[in-house]
Amino acid sequence: MAKVKTQKLFAVIGLGRFGTSVAKTLSRMGYEVLAIDSSEERINEVADSVTHAVQADAEDEETLKKLGIRNFDTVIVAIGSDVQANILVTVILKDMGVRHVVAKAQNDLHGKVLTKVGADQVVYPERDMGVRVAHALVTSTVMDYLELSPVHSLVEIRSPERFVGQTLGKADLRARYGITVIAIRKGDDVMASPGADTLIEKGDILVAVGSNDDLNRFEGEAF
Amino acid sequence: MAKVKTQKLFAVIGLGRFGTSVAKTLSRMGYEVLAIDSSEERINEVADSVTHAVQADAEDEETLKKLGIRNFDTVIVAIGSDVQANILVTVILKDMGVRHVVAKAQNDLHGKVLTKVGADQVVYPERDMGVRVAHALVTSTVMDYLELSPVHSLVEIRSPERFVGQTLGKADLRARYGITVIAIRKGDDVMASPGADTLIEKGDILVAVGSNDDLNRFEGEAF
Ligand SMILES: Nc1ncnc2c1ncn2[C@@H]1O[C@H](COP(=O)(O)OP(=O)(O)OP(=O)(O)O)[C@@H](O)[C@H]1O
Ligand SMILES: Nc1ncnc2c1ncn2[C@@H]1O[C@H](COP(=O)(O)OP(=O)(O)OP(=O)(O)O)[C@@H](O)[C@H]1O
Ligand SMILES: [Ca+2]
Ligand SMILES: [Ca+2]
Ligand SMILES: [Ca+2]
Ligand SMILES: [Ca+2]
Repeated sequence: MAKVKTQKLFAVIGLGRFGTSVAKTLSRMGYEVLAIDSSEERINEVADSVTHAVQADAEDEETLKKLGIRNFDTVIVAIGSDVQANILVTVILKDMGVRHVVAKAQNDLHGKVLTKVGADQVVYPERDMGVRVAHALVTSTVMDYLELSPVHSLVEIRSPERFVGQTLGKADLRARYGITVIAIRKGDDVMASPGADTLIEKGDILVAVGSNDDLNRFEGEAF
Repeated sequence: MAKVKTQKLFAVIGLGRFGTSVAKTLSRMGYEVLAIDSSEERINEVADSVTHAVQADAEDEETLKKLGIRNFDTVIVAIGSDVQANILVTVILKDMGVRHVVAKAQNDLHGKVLTKVGADQVVYPERDMGVRVAHALVTSTVMDYLELSPVHSLVEIRSPERFVGQTLGKADLRARYGITVIAIRKGDDVMASPGADTLIEKGDILVAVGSNDDLNRFEGEAF
């Protein structure tokens, strides 16, 4: 979800795969992005995709000052294995008055330290993606999901063969399974709030909301 | 979304942060998980969280045979920096007849090679999480999102102050912005398919579907 026009300034420090992806995505969404890495190779790789790419050691406070880092709204510290550098840079950024510092943590302990030294947000990319991939693997019917609460989810699920050709009213998944179909994807089209007379067709993706228990039962029984 | 009961068997090879998270999540969802790593330390760290944890070099075909790896439905190859080992293990697993092999790639080229040698699914955890974190950063109002199509998204968005105290019918976000509110989170409760008389309250999270353009406009104008 990009805002089409905005003045918000982002800086990304550390261009591993995670940092590079954050920088390129923000840039693609139309934001100004300053990318910093100590490696010339990494800087060359992103130079064409971001507003500014600077080879520099982010542990050097003077350099960060010269780059005007305090004027950036959000700085993402994506330095990885060098935990000490990751923490030190976070401290410097908060010292300089950067409003929102997001730091990548290697593990829980590291994350706690980052919070203590002032990081406004701590992210665990590998861990979080591990959770997402695991969820996606347990069933080939659920294509994507959002946790809405500890006990409710929203799932994208292939339309079960046995309901193909029926209307939503006839299938009555609410009465049968306690789940609500809130949108249907038909190819690249999306119908929000489909009605009782909407036909379930082959290849449709149902976007459904329910308790995890009810959704599990649906997955288990409907296919 | 866990299936409560299942016979599906998973193995995870390579227990970095990503592999460990996949293994632990599957295990928490009630699945049998075999975890393999060449490092004793890594094995000790997950031993209590998975069904079996085995210290072994996965490049050794005999070892994999002894572990009965062919009987596993899905094997996740989460070996990281050692790209050669990652590819070789993928080849061995497909050779042995493992039905579904998921491999973690370092970059596009690596991913292409993995597909060529038979990987059924290739994942890029750092890159994908970079995209997700970037999306989450550009606005403090969108809390989570799913891409439904190239041009439609589903977003979780804080209820705009100016609509608090109004019913959905009064707010009429469909007419005003072309977006449809398909669910509302109120604390840990979730109302699927809320009606025109549903009140928008302070702290509510609106789950809304629309075209990216319309959702952007809503984000830009409603707050
Ligand atoms: N002091 C520093 N100043 C600037 N850049 C740095 C500094 N220390 C490390 N980096 C850069 O941070 C980047 C990411 O670090 P590293 O490769 O260890 O992370 P990673 O967690 O393995 O990355 P990923 O898993 O996202 O690929 C590297 O490109 C490295 O050059
Ligand atoms: N041949 C092998 N057999 C078994 N395990 C292996 C083999 N080669 C590497 N591993 C294990 O794979 C794990 C993950 O590798 P590595 O740490 O390089 O990945 P990574 O991408 O940095 O991980 P992450 O970013 O998810 O933390 C390590 O624990 C390593 O011991
Ligand atoms: Ca790494
Ligand atoms: Ca969420
Ligand atoms: Ca990594
Ligand atoms: Ca999706």
